[in-house]
Amino acid sequence: MKEVLKYLKANQDRFLEELYEYLRFASVSAQPQHKPDLEQCAGWLVRHCKKIGMTARLVATNGHPIVVARTPRSEHSRRPHFIVYGHYDVQPVEPLDLWISPPFEPRKKGRQIFARGSTDNKGQNFAHLKAVEAYLKTNTPLPCDLTFVLEGEEEVGSAHLDSFLKKHRRELACRAVVVSDTGIPDLDHPALTCALRGIIAFEITLFGPARDLHSGGFGGAVENPAMALARLLATVRDDHGKILIPGFYDGAQALTRLERRQSARYPLSDAHLKKMLGVTRLFGEPGYTATERRSVRPTFEINGLTSGYQGEGTKTIVPAWARAKITCRLVPGQKPDQIRKVVLRHLKKNCPDTVRMEIEAGHGADAYLVQPDSPTAQAALRALEMAFHRKPILLREGGSIPIVNQFKKCLGADSLLLGLGLPDDNAHSPNEKFDLDCFEKGQVMSAHLWQELGAL
Amino acid sequence: MKEVLKYLKANQDRFLEELYEYLRFASVSAQPQHKPDLEQCAGWLVRHCKKIGMTARLVATNGHPIVVARTPRSEHSRRPHFIVYGHYDVQPVEPLDLWISPPFEPRKKGRQIFARGSTDNKGQNFAHLKAVEAYLKTNTPLPCDLTFVLEGEEEVGSAHLDSFLKKHRRELACRAVVVSDTGIPDLDHPALTCALRGIIAFEITLFGPARDLHSGGFGGAVENPAMALARLLATVRDDHGKILIPGFYDGAQALTRLERRQSARYPLSDAHLKKMLGVTRLFGEPGYTATERRSVRPTFEINGLTSGYQGEGTKTIVPAWARAKITCRLVPGQKPDQIRKVVLRHLKKNCPDTVRMEIEAGHGADAYLVQPDSPTAQAALRALEMAFHRKPILLREGGSIPIVNQFKKCLGADSLLLGLGLPDDNAHSPNEKFDLDCFEKGQVMSAHLWQELGAL
Repeated sequence: MKEVLKYLKANQDRFLEELYEYLRFASVSAQPQHKPDLEQCAGWLVRHCKKIGMTARLVATNGHPIVVARTPRSEHSRRPHFIVYGHYDVQPVEPLDLWISPPFEPRKKGRQIFARGSTDNKGQNFAHLKAVEAYLKTNTPLPCDLTFVLEGEEEVGSAHLDSFLKKHRRELACRAVVVSDTGIPDLDHPALTCALRGIIAFEITLFGPARDLHSGGFGGAVENPAMALARLLATVRDDHGKILIPGFYDGAQALTRLERRQSARYPLSDAHLKKMLGVTRLFGEPGYTATERRSVRPTFEINGLTSGYQGEGTKTIVPAWARAKITCRLVPGQKPDQIRKVVLRHLKKNCPDTVRMEIEAGHGADAYLVQPDSPTAQAALRALEMAFHRKPILLREGGSIPIVNQFKKCLGADSLLLGLGLPDDNAHSPNEKFDLDCFEKGQVMSAHLWQELGAL
Repeated sequence: MKEVLKYLKANQDRFLEELYEYLRFASVSAQPQHKPDLEQCAGWLVRHCKKIGMTARLVATNGHPIVVARTPRSEHSRRPHFIVYGHYDVQPVEPLDLWISPPFEPRKKGRQIFARGSTDNKGQNFAHLKAVEAYLKTNTPLPCDLTFVLEGEEEVGSAHLDSFLKKHRRELACRAVVVSDTGIPDLDHPALTCALRGIIAFEITLFGPARDLHSGGFGGAVENPAMALARLLATVRDDHGKILIPGFYDGAQALTRLERRQSARYPLSDAHLKKMLGVTRLFGEPGYTATERRSVRPTFEINGLTSGYQGEGTKTIVPAWARAKITCRLVPGQKPDQIRKVVLRHLKKNCPDTVRMEIEAGHGADAYLVQPDSPTAQAALRALEMAFHRKPILLREGGSIPIVNQFKKCLGADSLLLGLGLPDDNAHSPNEKFDLDCFEKGQVMSAHLWQELGAL
């Protein structure tokens, strides 16, 4: 291991130049004009993986290709197999005028590298590649077999990952999947994300009159669908932030003492959070801290409202319809289908007969939870501590990462979410950046991780 | 009078040709490219008024000109003076593809004349001009002095009518203003509109976080402004349609027995209204009929809702803000300032401290009421009955006509609202039409009206 760490230390300047090369590809998966950039980026990755001593190939899909790179397998030893998942596609860069420097011309300022894709996700998956390079170039025996799966469609929903996983199920059978595509609160708090929230999405539209009506001529004699919608949505929550839908919290597991302690260690004070979000005060379900409310508790959020006239000034109408887009976050123990059922039952029951409700169901995803006391999780925590020299925390994140469920479903494997992003990295936003300390410590963490996982 | 009525009867074909000429001007006041059309239309009107024996002139304003036409005044007799108000500007024609024939090429089908501006308002004010022509061309003494005020900005808010009225206050001093710019339920129910609702308009915006937040990362820990708005709006009304704002109904005069009887005579059944509006059922304030709810009772209407994401699919955000556009209709006895005060007080009191509310006040207008037993109203009712051979009804309309308040304020004169439109005339919509029976009966009504008003 000494050689590995020495190699990493000695080659940071070159690694950075290589990362710049990787970042220069405008691999925006959402925009068709960037298809050649994605192909070139994937080709570059394959060549790069080969150069550092792996076997690598492109797997074509109906969308952008997937890069599959394998560490050299030994004929006689049976080493545990792990997948490292990442993605080489990036978010669109618009609005361009908010960028201080061009998004695909990496710029270094202090310890920060500014470029689209730097933190999400090229910098993070490149850290793992560099750790593997260090093993291979120093002829240090890797205690595990690794397969990198670097896809090009994460930012557009990973539509072809499922069929890829199914088709290559045998090759990809593994003990766990390592994913560095989340974040840590700061460099003093390295973290293993052990839970994600699930989600259900839907929209409801209340239809009233056949067309917008003159509010002078007809107002007062017919239901106003916007008012009906407001009154319907108001039945969902009480003054204090508790959701009143019967059965909404069903299945949500109570927090263990360990989890409450872990959540209390999250180093973001309420005052800081309030300032960061720009709200007059924090607000949410009684009995939980802000950290818990946004990570381990189910929520009901209105994402959008649309009805009637939205332009300048006044238009005196009773709108023909009113719509709300809604997503609910779910937590481990809750099933999307079951929660969707109780939510829609409540809305139907409380919808007045003066309007007709249409419901359009959107996507759903299960919540995710790995037991933090599992051997792989414990191995990950040790690797984090060795790299960051700080006691790592257990994070439960409020968002949903659907690919984690895909790995569980297709391969039966849990994911180790070892994010290297920082809260101010501007993922998906202008001036995205990646911290060089995260990059370097990430490489070291990865190098230790294979030791720890290989020893299980 | 015999000669007058004979003249009207004998000249209908020519009148129709002249009306076609009038309708061919694309006098769309809202669209700058039609400025020449408005000028040509106004010039044509001046020439036409002169041709039928009136003195006429254009009065320039900072917008489109106003046509002022006067019947010949007598030196020695002192006859009562009345203003006939109308407008020569029309609504835009878009969407053009919904028109069966070009909007400025009048088309006759049965007893209907299809053209933009036919019912609103060229056909209606032309009927009055033709009645005056009949008096002047038959040398029948007109029992009153008349001044026609035909403006070119009614469809864009009559911005320059006020200063015109003030500047020409002496010339325009009159006993009453005759306005044919409303409607009747059908030809069997000629009507005098004796009341209009007032209005207050405003919009409220609730601001939450400084920007849209990721609902996974932060949902649950902050107020959702769209939910806060829904809950706030829900405090305004009960299940049955009653507005719960303290003081909201203050000042609203109770209906007299006469008014309830008149409203019951309105020949539109609930079943017909329900079908016409395409609602699942009628709905409104308990204790009132649908006709009363939409004409004589105050209302609180949400005209539009805007918040967060409104596009296709899902965007998982807690929106930064949510907005509602609102208008309240007021009834005679209610003051816009007072009702605005109680409404805003209620909203402020019920707005949670988790969001910041901004209120933008829009326009306000008083309700309007002429006593139906006044001598001028009784004269109008007699003229209606003589022309339509049906007992006229008293209408209270739910809409607001701001110019009526301007006449009251500037000239101290009440308006006699003697509409000639039918409910299916498509005013402001594609395929606007005017009924030839309304046109002819309107001329006869106007001819009788000057007799009845002159005899007061």
